[in-house]
Amino acid sequence: MIELEHIKKIARASPSKIVLLIIDGLGGLPHPETGKTELETARKPNLNRIARDSICGLIDPVSPGITPGSAPGHLAIFGYDPVKYNIGRGVLEAVGIDVQLKPQDIAARGNFCTVDDQGLIKHRRAGRISTDKNVLLCRLLSDIAIEGAEVSVLPVKEHRFVLILRGEGLSPELTDSDPQQLGLPPRRIEALSPQAERTARIANEFVSQARDRLKGQPSANMVLLRGFARRPDIPSMSDIYKLKPAAVATYPMYRGLARLVGMQVLPTGDTIADQLNTLRRYYADFDFFFVHFKTTDSRGEDGNFQAKVQAIEELDSALPSLLTLEPDVLVVTGDHSTPATLAMHSWHPVPFMLKSKWCRRDDVAEFSERACLAGGLGRFPAVEIMPLALAHALKLDKFGA
Amino acid sequence: MIELEHIKKIARASPSKIVLLIIDGLGGLPHPETGKTELETARKPNLNRIARDSICGLIDPVSPGITPGSAPGHLAIFGYDPVKYNIGRGVLEAVGIDVQLKPQDIAARGNFCTVDDQGLIKHRRAGRISTDKNVLLCRLLSDIAIEGAEVSVLPVKEHRFVLILRGEGLSPELTDSDPQQLGLPPRRIEALSPQAERTARIANEFVSQARDRLKGQPSANMVLLRGFARRPDIPSMSDIYKLKPAAVATYPMYRGLARLVGMQVLPTGDTIADQLNTLRRYYADFDFFFVHFKTTDSRGEDGNFQAKVQAIEELDSALPSLLTLEPDVLVVTGDHSTPATLAMHSWHPVPFMLKSKWCRRDDVAEFSERACLAGGLGRFPAVEIMPLALAHALKLDKFGA
Repeated sequence: MIELEHIKKIARASPSKIVLLIIDGLGGLPHPETGKTELETARKPNLNRIARDSICGLIDPVSPGITPGSAPGHLAIFGYDPVKYNIGRGVLEAVGIDVQLKPQDIAARGNFCTVDDQGLIKHRRAGRISTDKNVLLCRLLSDIAIEGAEVSVLPVKEHRFVLILRGEGLSPELTDSDPQQLGLPPRRIEALSPQAERTARIANEFVSQARDRLKGQPSANMVLLRGFARRPDIPSMSDIYKLKPAAVATYPMYRGLARLVGMQVLPTGDTIADQLNTLRRYYADFDFFFVHFKTTDSRGEDGNFQAKVQAIEELDSALPSLLTLEPDVLVVTGDHSTPATLAMHSWHPVPFMLKSKWCRRDDVAEFSERACLAGGLGRFPAVEIMPLALAHALKLDKFGA
Repeated sequence: MIELEHIKKIARASPSKIVLLIIDGLGGLPHPETGKTELETARKPNLNRIARDSICGLIDPVSPGITPGSAPGHLAIFGYDPVKYNIGRGVLEAVGIDVQLKPQDIAARGNFCTVDDQGLIKHRRAGRISTDKNVLLCRLLSDIAIEGAEVSVLPVKEHRFVLILRGEGLSPELTDSDPQQLGLPPRRIEALSPQAERTARIANEFVSQARDRLKGQPSANMVLLRGFARRPDIPSMSDIYKLKPAAVATYPMYRGLARLVGMQVLPTGDTIADQLNTLRRYYADFDFFFVHFKTTDSRGEDGNFQAKVQAIEELDSALPSLLTLEPDVLVVTGDHSTPATLAMHSWHPVPFMLKSKWCRRDDVAEFSERACLAGGLGRFPAVEIMPLALAHALKLDKFGA
C-alpha cells in the first residue's frame, strides 16, 4: 500500500497550483417530499460547469459506514490516514484559537455549564453565555495554582474554553468529566493508565477549584472537561508533498487543523466572497490552497434543508471569481455528509470532482450525489485525493523503474 | 486482506490455460480536437469482440494518482504488491540482458556520458553512442580490478551498461553518482548505511578508474551510475500459483521481469505476429502465457497520437490468431497509461477485460477507457488480476471451510 513515506519520495516542487475547496457537510439525503438532496435541489450552474470539465466520484472520508468528525474528515482529505493520525478534541480547540501547544502540553475542551443545588447538570452550555462573559470567567479561573502543572484557561466562544496543563510527565490518558447528559453530576476524571494518575489528580483539583470560584455565578457555575489530548506528531504537507500550502478558512477549528499540517493560515473575512478575494490576493505566494466553506454543514446540522440549499447556492454564485484564476488542479468536495434530514454528520459518501487539463473527463454533467456515482473515479477513500491532485498537477515523479 | 500466502494455499494445478496480454501504456487521454482517446479512435473489431464476451473494468496499477514505472506496473499484474517488491533499476537492467544475478550481487545502471574540461556533465548519454561503440568501451572497463569485489561491465544498448559488483558483504544502500542534470559534476557515491561504506569505496574506485580509462574518448569520456540494487527475493509464480508460466516478450526488460517471477522466457521474433506464432508453438507446453506488446507505449512516449492508434490497430488485426487458441481465460490490459498528449507514463487507470466461459459478462460492447468504466469489475487494483484470472480458470480452491 502506498503510504506518505512513498509519496514523499516521488513528490517534487513545481509552479503548478492546486485549489482544494471543501464544502463542509456537503453530502445530503433526499427531501422526503421531492426525492432530491440539498445538492440536487440547489441552483448551481457553476458547480455543474466544473463537473462537466472534471473527473467525478464519491469519497468515503474514513471508511464506509463511519461518520467522521471534522478533524478526521479533513485529515483524510489532506492525505493523512485519519485512523493513524488521531487529533484529540482538546488539541483541536487549542489550535483553533492560535495557541501554540508545546509537544508535552495537555489540552482539554471545556464547557461552562449550569448545575443545580444538588450539583446535577441543568444546562451543558450554561445557556450559551456570551463570549464576553466567557472571557471574564476564564480570567477568574486563570490564577488557579496546582502543584506540578502550570494551568491556562483560555476562552473560545460562547460557553467554550480550553484548559491547558503544562508540566513534566503529564499524560492525556484521562476520562472526560463531561457525561454529555443532563440530570447527572459531572464525572470524576479517571486515569486510563497508571502514568496518568498524577494528571488525573491535577485535573480533578482544577475542577474542584473552578467550582469554588464559580460559586454564585447566575448560570455558568461549573465546568465540564472532555477530550484531554496532546499534540499529535504529524509530518507537514510541505515536508511530504513539497508544497507551499495556505489555508483560507473562517472558523478557528479549520484554521487550527490547517496549521497542524503545516499550512500557512491567511487572514480573511467572514463570507465566501471574502475568502475568494483572499485566495486571489495570495495566489502568487503559494502553490496549494485549502478553502473551507462552513455554512453548508451548519445549516445541515440545524436540520434546515432549505437553508442548506441556499448555502450551496451562495457558494455557487461566488465561484466565478475562483474559476478566473484557472488553477492547474481544482478539487471540490466535502469532509463528510451532513444531511439536513438527519441534522448531524453522517457516514454517506461525499460528491467529489477534480478539474485539470490532465483529468480523464467522464460524462457527469451535474455535481450531485447521484450524478457523481457514475463518475470516472467511482467511489474511493478520501486519503487518495492528495495523490490524485498532485498527479494531475504533474507534481509526482514515476514510482519505480 | 488476501496475500500471496493465502493464494498459495488454495491454488491448484489444472490443465486450463490463461493468456495475459499486456498492451504496454494502453490507457490514454482524449485528443483535444476529437475528444476521443487513442483506444477510442482506433479501429479495433477484435478487441471490441473480446470486450462483448468479457467482464470489463479499469485497473489502478499501483494506487490512484501513482504513475508506475514498468516494473511496478508489471509486478502488480503478476500479483505481487509493487510497493513490497521493489526492483531496483540496476537489477532490471541486468536481468534484461540475460545476466543471471546471484543473490548477493550488486547491480547498477550505467550511462556513458560526456564531461567537459572541468568535469561537468555536457551530455548525460554521450550523444547516444552506438551499441557497437558501447561494446568496445565496456571491454575497456572490464579488467578494472578492485580489492574486495569482482567487477563486470556489460553493454546494454546505445549509451547504457550494467555494472555488477560480486563479492562478500557488499550492500546496495548507495546513492547515485548520476545527478540527472547537466552542468554538474558526477556525484560522489555515498553509503546510506554503515555496512555499505566499503561498497561505496569500491563503487567510487570503479568510477575513478573508469574515468582514467575513458580519458581522451571523443564523447563517452565518463560514466554515471544509478539504481544500485540487489535481486529482490520474489517467490516464483509456479510456487505461489502452481502455474507453468511462459513469457513472450520482445524487449529485454520485460523478459527480465518475467524471469524474476519465474517465467520461462520463450524465443520469439520482433512483431506481434511473431509473438502470437510463438504462443501457438508452445501452447501445449505451459498453462500461463504473458504476451507483452510494447509499441503502444513507445508511440505514446513519442507523443505521437496517430502512431499509437496505429499500434493498437496493428495489435488488433493480429488477434484472430490468438483467439483461435480459445484459452480458458484471456486477460487483456496494460501496465499503465501512456497518453500521447502527455508523452509519458501516467497515473490514469487502465482498461481491463477478462474473457472466460465463467465470467459474469457485463454490457460493455467496446474496449475503451470510457466503456470499461461501466464494466462489471469497476475500478480495482491490478494485484487482484491474478486471483481473478486463476478463479476463472478454476485454479483456486475454496477459501476456508
